[in-house]
Amino acid sequence: MTSPSSAPPAAPEAGGGLGRAGDLFQLLRDGRPWTRAELAMTTGLARSTVAGKVDLLLNSGLVVSVGEALSSGGRPPSRFAFHPQARTVLAVDVGASHVRVALTDLNGEVLAERCAQRTVAEGPEAVLGYVVDSARKLLADSKRPQSLLAGVGIGLPGPVEHATGRPVKPPIMPGWDGFDVVGFVQRSLPVPVLVDNDVNIMALGERAAFWPGVDDLLFIKVATGIGSGIISSGQLQRGADGTAGDLGHVRVARGAEVLCRCGNVGCLEALASGAAVARSLAAQGLEASTGADVVGLASHGNLAAIQALRQAGRDIGEVLATCVNLLNPSVIVIGGSVAAAGEHVMAGVREVVYHRSPPLATTNLRIVLSRAGERAAVMGASQLVSQHVLSPAGVEAALAAASAG
Amino acid sequence: MTSPSSAPPAAPEAGGGLGRAGDLFQLLRDGRPWTRAELAMTTGLARSTVAGKVDLLLNSGLVVSVGEALSSGGRPPSRFAFHPQARTVLAVDVGASHVRVALTDLNGEVLAERCAQRTVAEGPEAVLGYVVDSARKLLADSKRPQSLLAGVGIGLPGPVEHATGRPVKPPIMPGWDGFDVVGFVQRSLPVPVLVDNDVNIMALGERAAFWPGVDDLLFIKVATGIGSGIISSGQLQRGADGTAGDLGHVRVARGAEVLCRCGNVGCLEALASGAAVARSLAAQGLEASTGADVVGLASHGNLAAIQALRQAGRDIGEVLATCVNLLNPSVIVIGGSVAAAGEHVMAGVREVVYHRSPPLATTNLRIVLSRAGERAAVMGASQLVSQHVLSPAGVEAALAAASAG
Repeated sequence: MTSPSSAPPAAPEAGGGLGRAGDLFQLLRDGRPWTRAELAMTTGLARSTVAGKVDLLLNSGLVVSVGEALSSGGRPPSRFAFHPQARTVLAVDVGASHVRVALTDLNGEVLAERCAQRTVAEGPEAVLGYVVDSARKLLADSKRPQSLLAGVGIGLPGPVEHATGRPVKPPIMPGWDGFDVVGFVQRSLPVPVLVDNDVNIMALGERAAFWPGVDDLLFIKVATGIGSGIISSGQLQRGADGTAGDLGHVRVARGAEVLCRCGNVGCLEALASGAAVARSLAAQGLEASTGADVVGLASHGNLAAIQALRQAGRDIGEVLATCVNLLNPSVIVIGGSVAAAGEHVMAGVREVVYHRSPPLATTNLRIVLSRAGERAAVMGASQLVSQHVLSPAGVEAALAAASAG
Repeated sequence: MTSPSSAPPAAPEAGGGLGRAGDLFQLLRDGRPWTRAELAMTTGLARSTVAGKVDLLLNSGLVVSVGEALSSGGRPPSRFAFHPQARTVLAVDVGASHVRVALTDLNGEVLAERCAQRTVAEGPEAVLGYVVDSARKLLADSKRPQSLLAGVGIGLPGPVEHATGRPVKPPIMPGWDGFDVVGFVQRSLPVPVLVDNDVNIMALGERAAFWPGVDDLLFIKVATGIGSGIISSGQLQRGADGTAGDLGHVRVARGAEVLCRCGNVGCLEALASGAAVARSLAAQGLEASTGADVVGLASHGNLAAIQALRQAGRDIGEVLATCVNLLNPSVIVIGGSVAAAGEHVMAGVREVVYHRSPPLATTNLRIVLSRAGERAAVMGASQLVSQHVLSPAGVEAALAAASAG
């Protein structure tokens, strides 16, 4: 995607569809009612063109008639508005050890939801089979026809090639490397299927629900592993190969001797993830093998666990201070099961970020705990789909399907 | 700016001007000739609407008639194309110790240029006075009327508040803090004036000239100081407060004891900038007080200078490895006077980046020297202005001015 400040807009995108129904629809997305005359005046399109496009949109159900406008005489003109309940979205969060499936409307409102303890290591057929079964069950329970399902959004706990939706050498997902997630799901649910890294969609979900006006937001997940999703200039940043936000393998000063599973030494994840902190406590003779064990010990006042979480926060803060220099976000959201344990990790993060980052970049910086919590990923998955299907091209596709069906 | 993947487009921008001449112009920016009929068909706008807008664009000079199309009978239809020579742009690069002023067309082609050894510490009136004098001289020399000057782009060696163009606590620019650069220049040149950090516009310039298809590019300048300009998803990233890309004050492992002028210890700039390397050589008894001295010593084969440049490259590489994890660029461009000295710095950078960064993120990564060289900033300043004045809103403003004048 190009921007006005750095490159000329591609001509076909900028002007190629000025008169398409999908472009006209972008005006109606503001949610307020419009008359045909207002649409014609605002766009400069011919009245007859507008009338034809509005009929297409009404026919698709994406736009509904919402009462009548005041008229200067004669039959009062009709008014139209976007109808977010016209379609459903299947939002899927595949974690290392859980699968959450939600059915939402086009505004991200959850209509029905299922969650199961499943491990991603069961492989793609088993996990995605559960997703497809859940879709059928949720649609049936909420009495929504499958024909009005607009799309499926899926977050996976590993790197994903954005263009194809295929996992790329995901370290904790045996059997998933290069798997055709989109094709598998579309055999049962023939709709657009969008796949992304789980932390990317958590960033989207947190922003959509709680920080809609914030254009520069960094979401960091601290759980078994560590990763981040970057929103800059209002846009999710995936980088050239889809690996942007990979904070877990940034080197931290304290870790010169600590070997990481990636083969390097001193990676943040090898020091400050839930698994890493548990290992360091186990080495001190404590009973801890997961991040949840560490959080449990700390909540019972175990001093070694509290100190270890605080130090993990400092290590994370060291990397986040660099992120602040580099990206200058206005909000950093800390999520994931270890951070959810609260104050000890956050205290360490704040201590180092506010010490290390330049004053100009931290004057307006907020560092906060995730508010979306365990629903961040399904909220983002829904957002990913609704942005796609409500774009000019997405609406055009929906209209073509409606007129063919 | 919002993006389709993360937030709904703002309705007024997305659809508010579908039929404006400024929007129609975006089609013509591709440089190839269009007929009125082609424009009407592609946009869906009424023929009469298109004809009126084309007349406005012809009248402004931004679009010219370019011969005739084949006709199926009758008078052959006229064809129209964008005319980049219709306006000039003043592109200004204010460095720590030089001012470069170029007059370009809307494609960034340099028509005339001046450069002087001036120090930014002379203060804004003296430096910007030289800019305004140069503008008059360059316009006169190239016989271009001031009335066709479309805008002024200025790069400054410090943080700039993007919305207002005012420097914000710039460390090496005494007298400039909060100065109204735009207002001062507009008193002599009443056109749009856009001001940005010099490294940001170097990134824009390098990309426009040499990497037009690259959407994820990091430009790092290594000179008296160290800074970077970030292009992600095709867009220059300024961050929430305009401080994005401030790599100079990221901590590097080697520097625990080295005090930086910012008050922290271990900052990259305190170890690897031209000034820092010169200081470390002077402490060994060598005659070096600037980066240029270091480059001179190295080019004469001085082993201590070569080793110092190589180590500076490693320190820079340590920070760039984190940038690669975080941003996943496909191109890193290294510019600035110290890097221009070449192979020793680059060798150190490559050594560490390829060692530290994850394989997925470096498979397609290129690390290259700046090709725009000392012209990168004026190329970017010209680009900043042409993107602004050729945007839909910019063209509308030009048309209003043309019809008023």
